[in-house]
Amino acid sequence: MTSGALAEHIGEVTLIDQHVHGCWVAAGDRQRFENALNEANTEPIVGSGLDSQLGFAVRAHCAPVLGLPKHVEPQLYWERRCQFSEAELARMFLPAAGVSDWLVDTGIGADTAGPADMADLSGSRAYEVVRLEEVAEQAAQAPGDYATAFEDILRRRAATAVGTKSILAYRGGFDGDLSEPSPSQVADAASRWRDSGGTRLQNRVLLRFGLHQALQLGKPLQLHVGLGDRDCDLHKTNPLLLLDFLRHSADTPIVLLHCYPYEREAGYLAQAFNNVYLDGGLSVNHLGARSPSFIARLLELAPFHKILYSSDGFGPAELHFLGAALWRKGIHRILREFVANDDWSEGDAIRVVGLIAHDNAAGIYRV
Amino acid sequence: MTSGALAEHIGEVTLIDQHVHGCWVAAGDRQRFENALNEANTEPIVGSGLDSQLGFAVRAHCAPVLGLPKHVEPQLYWERRCQFSEAELARMFLPAAGVSDWLVDTGIGADTAGPADMADLSGSRAYEVVRLEEVAEQAAQAPGDYATAFEDILRRRAATAVGTKSILAYRGGFDGDLSEPSPSQVADAASRWRDSGGTRLQNRVLLRFGLHQALQLGKPLQLHVGLGDRDCDLHKTNPLLLLDFLRHSADTPIVLLHCYPYEREAGYLAQAFNNVYLDGGLSVNHLGARSPSFIARLLELAPFHKILYSSDGFGPAELHFLGAALWRKGIHRILREFVANDDWSEGDAIRVVGLIAHDNAAGIYRV
Amino acid sequence: MTSGALAEHIGEVTLIDQHVHGCWVAAGDRQRFENALNEANTEPIVGSGLDSQLGFAVRAHCAPVLGLPKHVEPQLYWERRCQFSEAELARMFLPAAGVSDWLVDTGIGADTAGPADMADLSGSRAYEVVRLEEVAEQAAQAPGDYATAFEDILRRRAATAVGTKSILAYRGGFDGDLSEPSPSQVADAASRWRDSGGTRLQNRVLLRFGLHQALQLGKPLQLHVGLGDRDCDLHKTNPLLLLDFLRHSADTPIVLLHCYPYEREAGYLAQAFNNVYLDGGLSVNHLGARSPSFIARLLELAPFHKILYSSDGFGPAELHFLGAALWRKGIHRILREFVANDDWSEGDAIRVVGLIAHDNAAGIYRV
Repeated sequence: MTSGALAEHIGEVTLIDQHVHGCWVAAGDRQRFENALNEANTEPIVGSGLDSQLGFAVRAHCAPVLGLPKHVEPQLYWERRCQFSEAELARMFLPAAGVSDWLVDTGIGADTAGPADMADLSGSRAYEVVRLEEVAEQAAQAPGDYATAFEDILRRRAATAVGTKSILAYRGGFDGDLSEPSPSQVADAASRWRDSGGTRLQNRVLLRFGLHQALQLGKPLQLHVGLGDRDCDLHKTNPLLLLDFLRHSADTPIVLLHCYPYEREAGYLAQAFNNVYLDGGLSVNHLGARSPSFIARLLELAPFHKILYSSDGFGPAELHFLGAALWRKGIHRILREFVANDDWSEGDAIRVVGLIAHDNAAGIYRV
Repeated sequence: MTSGALAEHIGEVTLIDQHVHGCWVAAGDRQRFENALNEANTEPIVGSGLDSQLGFAVRAHCAPVLGLPKHVEPQLYWERRCQFSEAELARMFLPAAGVSDWLVDTGIGADTAGPADMADLSGSRAYEVVRLEEVAEQAAQAPGDYATAFEDILRRRAATAVGTKSILAYRGGFDGDLSEPSPSQVADAASRWRDSGGTRLQNRVLLRFGLHQALQLGKPLQLHVGLGDRDCDLHKTNPLLLLDFLRHSADTPIVLLHCYPYEREAGYLAQAFNNVYLDGGLSVNHLGARSPSFIARLLELAPFHKILYSSDGFGPAELHFLGAALWRKGIHRILREFVANDDWSEGDAIRVVGLIAHDNAAGIYRV
Repeated sequence: MTSGALAEHIGEVTLIDQHVHGCWVAAGDRQRFENALNEANTEPIVGSGLDSQLGFAVRAHCAPVLGLPKHVEPQLYWERRCQFSEAELARMFLPAAGVSDWLVDTGIGADTAGPADMADLSGSRAYEVVRLEEVAEQAAQAPGDYATAFEDILRRRAATAVGTKSILAYRGGFDGDLSEPSPSQVADAASRWRDSGGTRLQNRVLLRFGLHQALQLGKPLQLHVGLGDRDCDLHKTNPLLLLDFLRHSADTPIVLLHCYPYEREAGYLAQAFNNVYLDGGLSVNHLGARSPSFIARLLELAPFHKILYSSDGFGPAELHFLGAALWRKGIHRILREFVANDDWSEGDAIRVVGLIAHDNAAGIYRV
C-alpha cells in the first residue's frame, strides 16, 4: 500500500491556526530573537536559544524559506534574517504556512501584529480571540459597577471576536475552587482590586468571575494548559485540576491549549466531556524533531472531532510557519505508520487530517 | 534473525483475561453501543463513539470476525451487528479471543453475563472476582454487626472466587489515610451509613475497612487505577498515592488495573514491592493503533513476572476480543524490535510472552 | 545519507560519568547481586532481579565483557561472575565504559570503592561529590555551633571536591518551603537534633540550610529526582515542586539526576532556568531495551548544553559499564533517526553527542 494520497493531502491541506499571536512588526536585536525561541526562561538566555530542538527546527525548516540551505549555521541564519524587515519576513513565512484563518489572541504583544495586520501580511483571514484578563483590567479602569463593566466590555469586544482566552494558568493555576462567585463577592473583590490599582489581575474571585462570564457568552473558551514561562507553576496547570470546572461548564466549547507535558490528561478530558477540545500548539514547535511522538499522543484518547491545529506563533514569523511545517511532517509520519500497519485505512487518515486541520475549528468558531 | 517463532507463539498463546466484566446479554440501541465505546463520558455522546482510536480498532479488527472487510464504514458495521443477538455476537467474539480463563468482576452490569454465562458463551473457564464495595452494600443491608456481616459475606463469596476488587478510585480516590480503622470507628461509620440508607458506599472508614479485610483474606486484590469515567478525579487515582498502603500490605498480591496515564508509576511500584502487579486492560482497547507504545511502557520498570494481561471488556463482546487482538499485535511489534536490535534473545521474548499471557496470572489466582 | 561518522563518534567518544557511586570491593552472595539490580525494592527480592529490563541488559551487554555469549542464562552469568573478585570485575568493566572522569558521590556505600579506588581500578580520573546530608551528620557530631561546623566541614571537604549532592528526595521530598532558614531556626533545630542523637537527618530546617549552603558554595549541586527506592514518596520528587527553590537559586548549577518518570518536567526546568541541568543516569540502566525512548525524551525541552551523561552505577561494576553501553546504543538510535529524517544535520548530531558526553560536564565541574 502506498500513502501517496495521504502525503499529498497533508502537504496541501489548508489550516485554521486556532491559537496564535501576532508576529513582530518592528526590528529587534539578536537577544530578542534568541529569547523568543525559549518559552520558559524569562531572563536573558545564557548560551544560544538556537541550541535546542526549536532552534534546530528553525535551521532545518525556515532556512530554505529565506533561500538558505537546511541546517545553516546560526550566525549565517541571523545575518540573512537581518537583511529583511519583520514585515518582509512575515510576508514570506506567513503565506508559506498554508493557513486560511488566523485566530489571534490579542492579549499580549504591544509590538506585534493585530488581526488586521496578520490578514494583510499573510493574505488570509484573521479573527480576534479576546483575553479575559485584559477585559478584567479594562473593567477595573472603567467607571461604575465592575461586573456590569466587565459584561459590557466582553460583549462589545466579543461581537467581532470568535472566542475568549484565559491565562488562569499564570495567575495561580487551576488548583482550588473555580465555581462562579456571588455578585457580592465580585463587588468586594473588585473594589479592593481597584483600590490597589487594578492592574495584573491575580484575584481568584475575579478570575473565576471572568471564566463564568465566558461560559455564559457561549463562544469557545481557550485555556492555557501546561508549558509556559516559569512564572507559572507548571504542576498547577495540569488540566485534571479543571475537572470540577468542566463538570459544570455545560455546552460552551473549552479548548485546552499546548498541553505538554499533560497531553494525555487533556486527551482524557476531551473524551470525558462533549464540550472539551485540545491542541498541541507551542509544544510542537519546541519539540522539533521530537514532535511526531507528541502529535501521536494527541491521537490517543481524544475523539478525532475534538483535536485542533495551532502554532501558537508569537514574535518571529518563523514560528507561525514552523508550527505548520512540523505538524504536516509529524502527522504524516504517524498516520503513514497507522496505515502501513493496516490499523487505519488511508481514507480514514485523510479524513482525520481534514478534521484536525480545519473542520473541527470551523465548526466551533464558525469561521 | 527471523522472529517467526515469536510471531507464531504470540498468535497462538492462550490468555488468562484476569480482569473482565460480562458481555451484554440483551439487545440495545445504537446510543448504547456508541457510549460503550467511550470510557470517560457519562453523558450521551455528541458525534460518534466510533470516531476514536477504539472505534477505528473495532472497524479494523472486529469487522472481519463478522465477515466484513477491515475498516468498514460505521453504519455498515452497525447494520451487520444488528443481524445478530448479543449472545450470537458473544459466541463469535469470545472464542476468537483465545482466552482460557475469564476472571469476571461481577460488581457492575445487571444486563451482562455472569461467570457461568461467560463460560458458556466462550467455551472456556470463568471465575468470579468479588467487588468489595458490593460486599459492603450487602453488609449494610444485613442484620447485626456490620463488620461481622462484611467478614461473613466476603468469606462466603470469596470461597468460590479467585480475588477481590476495589473501586476506591471512584469513591474519593487514593489520596489520604488508607490505614486500617479501629473496630469502633467501623461500627460508628457503619451505623451512620445504615441510618442514611446504606447505598453507594462513599465513607472512607468503611472503604478502608474493606481493603484491609481483603488483605487479610489473602487472595489477589485488584485496584482500579487511572483511566475511568469522569466521576472519578483522575489525578487522585495516581497509584503513587497508594505508597503508604502498599508499605503495609504484606504478602497479599495487589494488582493495579488499567493504569493509563500512570503506567510508568505503576511499573515502579511493581518493582518496589514484591506483592504488586499491574496490567494495561481497558487502556489497550482505548488506545487502538497507539497501544503498542503503551504496551512498551508496561515493559519498563516492572519485573516481567509482575505483568498481567486483561481486556477489561464490558458490554459489547467486541471488547473482550479486541483486547486480545490488540495485545497480540502490540506486544509482537515491541518484542520483535527488542529481538531485532539484539537487546533480547528470541527465546527470552517467547518466555516473557508466556509469563504475561498466563503464567503470572495462573500463579497468583491459582487457576 | 549514511551516519557512519555519527556511529563512529558515538562509539569512541570519551564520557564524563558525572554521577556515580563506588563499585563493590568485597565479595558477596547472589542475593546481594540480585537486589543490586532492583532500585526500588528494599526487601529481599522474590523471583529474580535479572527478570527485568536491567537484568536482560546485563545479559546482553555485560556477558561479552566476561567472555560469555550475549543473552547467556542467568545461572551461567552468575557462575562466571563468581570466578572473579570484585576488583577483577571492576578492572574489566570500568575501562570498558570509556569514561575519562568519574564524579563519585561518597555519601553511601561503606563497602564500595572511593574516588581513589575508582581511579585505580579504571585507569581514569576520579573526583568526589560531597553529600550534604553526610556533612550535616558530621556537623551534628562536631563541637560548637552547628552552622559554623557545617560550613567548616563543607568548605574543607569541598576544597577537593567538584560538587555537592542532596538526597532531600529521600528526606521528605520537595513539597513545601525550601527557603533559607534563619540562623536562630537553624540553631534551634540543630540543638533538638543533636539532643536526639544527630543521625539520619530528616529535619526540614536543617535540610534547607544545607541546600542554601551549597548554593553559596557555588559548585554544582546535584539533586536526586524521581526513581529511587520505596522509602521515598516518588510523587514528592517531581522536580516541578522545586520551582520556588530554583527561582531563588541564582547562578549555582543545579543538576537534576535520574528524573524518571519526570524527565519531561526536568527538561522544562532546564529550559526555564539558565542554571538547571539534567541527566538520565540510573533510569537508562533500569530501562534497558526501552532506554532509547527515554533518552529521546531527555532531548525535548532541555537546551543541548544542559544535558549530561551519568550511569549512577553503584555496587556491581557491570552498572558502571552498562550505563555507557546503553547510552551509546540509545543515543545512536535516536540521533541516527533525526539525521535520516533530515531534521538534524549529521554535524549537529556529532556536536550534541560531544556536549552530552563531556563538554557540558567539563564546563560546570571544571574537570
